[in-house]
Amino acid sequence: MGSEMTAAVAIHSINPKVLKCEYTVRGEIDTYTQNLEQELQTNPGSLPFDEIIYCSIGNPQALGQQPITFFHEVLALCDHPSLLERTDTNTSFSSDSIARACQILNLFPGKATGAYSHSQGVKGLRDVIAAGIAARDGFPSSSDDIFLTDGATPGVHYMMQLLLRSEADGILCPVPQYPLYSASITLHGGTHVPYYLDEANGWALEISELKKQLENARSKGIIVRALVVINPGNPTGQVLTEENQQQIAEFCKKEDLVLIADEVYQENILAEGKKFNSFKKIFRSMGYGEDVPLVSYHSISKGYYGECGKRGGYMEVTGFSNSVREHIYKVVSVNLCANISGQILTSLVMNPPKPGDASYESYAAERDGILKSLARRAKALEDALNNLEGVTCNKAEGSLFLFPQIHLSEKAIKAAKAAKKEPDAFYALRLLESTGIVVLPGSSFGQVPGTYHFRCSILPQENKIPAIASRLAAFHESFMNQFRD
Amino acid sequence: MGSEMTAAVAIHSINPKVLKCEYTVRGEIDTYTQNLEQELQTNPGSLPFDEIIYCSIGNPQALGQQPITFFHEVLALCDHPSLLERTDTNTSFSSDSIARACQILNLFPGKATGAYSHSQGVKGLRDVIAAGIAARDGFPSSSDDIFLTDGATPGVHYMMQLLLRSEADGILCPVPQYPLYSASITLHGGTHVPYYLDEANGWALEISELKKQLENARSKGIIVRALVVINPGNPTGQVLTEENQQQIAEFCKKEDLVLIADEVYQENILAEGKKFNSFKKIFRSMGYGEDVPLVSYHSISKGYYGECGKRGGYMEVTGFSNSVREHIYKVVSVNLCANISGQILTSLVMNPPKPGDASYESYAAERDGILKSLARRAKALEDALNNLEGVTCNKAEGSLFLFPQIHLSEKAIKAAKAAKKEPDAFYALRLLESTGIVVLPGSSFGQVPGTYHFRCSILPQENKIPAIASRLAAFHESFMNQFRD
Repeated sequence: MGSEMTAAVAIHSINPKVLKCEYTVRGEIDTYTQNLEQELQTNPGSLPFDEIIYCSIGNPQALGQQPITFFHEVLALCDHPSLLERTDTNTSFSSDSIARACQILNLFPGKATGAYSHSQGVKGLRDVIAAGIAARDGFPSSSDDIFLTDGATPGVHYMMQLLLRSEADGILCPVPQYPLYSASITLHGGTHVPYYLDEANGWALEISELKKQLENARSKGIIVRALVVINPGNPTGQVLTEENQQQIAEFCKKEDLVLIADEVYQENILAEGKKFNSFKKIFRSMGYGEDVPLVSYHSISKGYYGECGKRGGYMEVTGFSNSVREHIYKVVSVNLCANISGQILTSLVMNPPKPGDASYESYAAERDGILKSLARRAKALEDALNNLEGVTCNKAEGSLFLFPQIHLSEKAIKAAKAAKKEPDAFYALRLLESTGIVVLPGSSFGQVPGTYHFRCSILPQENKIPAIASRLAAFHESFMNQFRD
Repeated sequence: MGSEMTAAVAIHSINPKVLKCEYTVRGEIDTYTQNLEQELQTNPGSLPFDEIIYCSIGNPQALGQQPITFFHEVLALCDHPSLLERTDTNTSFSSDSIARACQILNLFPGKATGAYSHSQGVKGLRDVIAAGIAARDGFPSSSDDIFLTDGATPGVHYMMQLLLRSEADGILCPVPQYPLYSASITLHGGTHVPYYLDEANGWALEISELKKQLENARSKGIIVRALVVINPGNPTGQVLTEENQQQIAEFCKKEDLVLIADEVYQENILAEGKKFNSFKKIFRSMGYGEDVPLVSYHSISKGYYGECGKRGGYMEVTGFSNSVREHIYKVVSVNLCANISGQILTSLVMNPPKPGDASYESYAAERDGILKSLARRAKALEDALNNLEGVTCNKAEGSLFLFPQIHLSEKAIKAAKAAKKEPDAFYALRLLESTGIVVLPGSSFGQVPGTYHFRCSILPQENKIPAIASRLAAFHESFMNQFRD
């Protein structure tokens, strides 16, 4: 039967958009890492390192970050409300987690958190989230504009699906970018219109570059529908200034573009003097209301909470007509609703304990401990990277990543080509097999042709950073020596 | 600014596939119901009924079905593992829920259930699920073939995305059907090739009808890629016989079709003498292995557990080449992973307490109580419907729904047209406004042109069924009298 195997579905008969889609964050490096993990378990001592150190993806709890106690108390009580009827619960749980769980459970008829909710998410939870957004921005937010999602990802797909009619529709998207955007654009049949962040200027987003790329795309007949901005940046870590954000807002309004604002790292500000401003606040402070469409994404996967596996998040959709919103609602409804635990966690993240609450001090200590440690780790890794020969790394302002440039020799580039690898993938694979440190090649995120980078997360535990720095330095020196021109 | 409003996104500039997509399960009836709920709260006594009775969607816990205690114990412990360190946990939780939670937590490095998992789901949980499938079928299952999903829905989208290249690709899909299928086919740009279930023959799936519709589609140049079978049926409730399933398997093999088997109601068998057989078991018992592609969906939303809001489920993918599977994996990876609570619950559903386990007796009593009550409710509603003038309702064999046909008078059909409604939507809206009973019109699911139906879930609590039956009977009589030709 071999030759007839799967006649129904062959590579040549699957959707070419699926074939074309690239998503290498979980690609070759990931598969290779899984094999090495296996090898370490089955043949300990067979590799030049005894553990894999994940600087690859933003997955804090996988690297030992502890979840926020209050959040998990509330989740457990909501999962199993009969705990609330037991007297020993008063000693095992904080009083405010009990009160919060009761408030939340009262939003569910019969306290049934196992029921489908409204397609946009539980109304009472959206009210809490909208109040959290309003408190953050100083401008009103409505629960009608909130769509709760399983992480930010489905929300991005919804918007691409809505906007992209054919290859003639384009989305302005940064380079480097988080590759969800290019993957989603490809899967929905549109065109990725790249704009380059200015590495020499701290990964700045220059309006002149946006204009240039927009005009270039238009001259090719592309109808540009939206601008994606990732702030704080992934993989680049820059935090936009208020003035820059105002220019971006003006640009979108003038050019009739939807602003798609990926703001999932809004709580991850690493550098002194930097501040996150939501685009919603920028828009409203400029008087932009229902005439300029804005979609803002947030997620429970990042911040100080790092609840990636819970898959929670929201999109706040403003500036769309009611008739278009009805179609967004319809498409969201096909998927019924986001998972309720994620919905609950999203409401907690947007309304954490306040001063005076029983958990406030322990909550604040957990939060600040994580955020301060992340800032120290970022600085230590940034310094370590800048100490390497031929490596330049911009200041880590925000998010969970550094994106250093490596100046590779001609000889290294040739060796990569001979191995049929991108030069930075070649470097990352060599680093992995020599040290167990996993970083992702810049080519997975996009970069100026002829430049090479890697993305390095700041998430390994703080006590491991010195060892990472020294192993990286030793590897880098030997790599540079091996391939010196 | 009114006229310029949202120039960036107007109805005429959104994706026409989104415009064309229909999903009325959460459409007009749903919106109207929400308004009535509001009215009951703000003006009690203003309507001819004092509560809404949801026979519309399959959402058991929203109608008072209690979750299975063991499952929620395990979930709470996994959400908040520090409970396991407290001595009072031994008195508040069953010993096997504690043991199970420990087993599950050991699958997560650092017990971190807040981390992203492997894109297909946690390997150890997939092993448990594969073992559950093997025990169900008597044939092996591999965790490599399991993709854990947020409910069954994303899995359906993945397959449509994979298979549909253009409108020239078609999917054979039953009429009536769960409208996720037609919506997903439309969103992914393919063609819905309908085949009609034989209502006069207990909603039988006739191979002659499949052949006829396949040939008809092929004569129009449509390349038919897959056959969707929903077993037990939604909205129709039929349970296929083993012989019929073998014929379907042969048909798919002969015609090079992927079999897309929606088996989410596999635990909802309502009629004596009926039995669920998975298509995996049918395929393997016929000797079909890697030469016939099969995708089977399951979900934690249905069964006796009804955990809709937790969004858990899996697809088991067999008979695809490795190269095609790599593309499925890639597209799944773009969405990172299914939510971990849903993953855990899926493993529990596929490996519930066994005889001898501490929770077994209470678990079995909860499960059997629900399943037996559902069977009684189905029979009572089926009888009540068959007692109505001009209504015929097939026997409820499985799933959670009845799909009676209503023979409407010419006068009623004319009145519906005058109100710009489908005749069955007109009936359902009248029923809702008179009695508070929510059913969904057959036109949302598809039906033979000129016939009218509605879908009625069997989920209202058992003590409400007599009142539902009598309110329905009184409404129906007055409706028939009002529109007698």
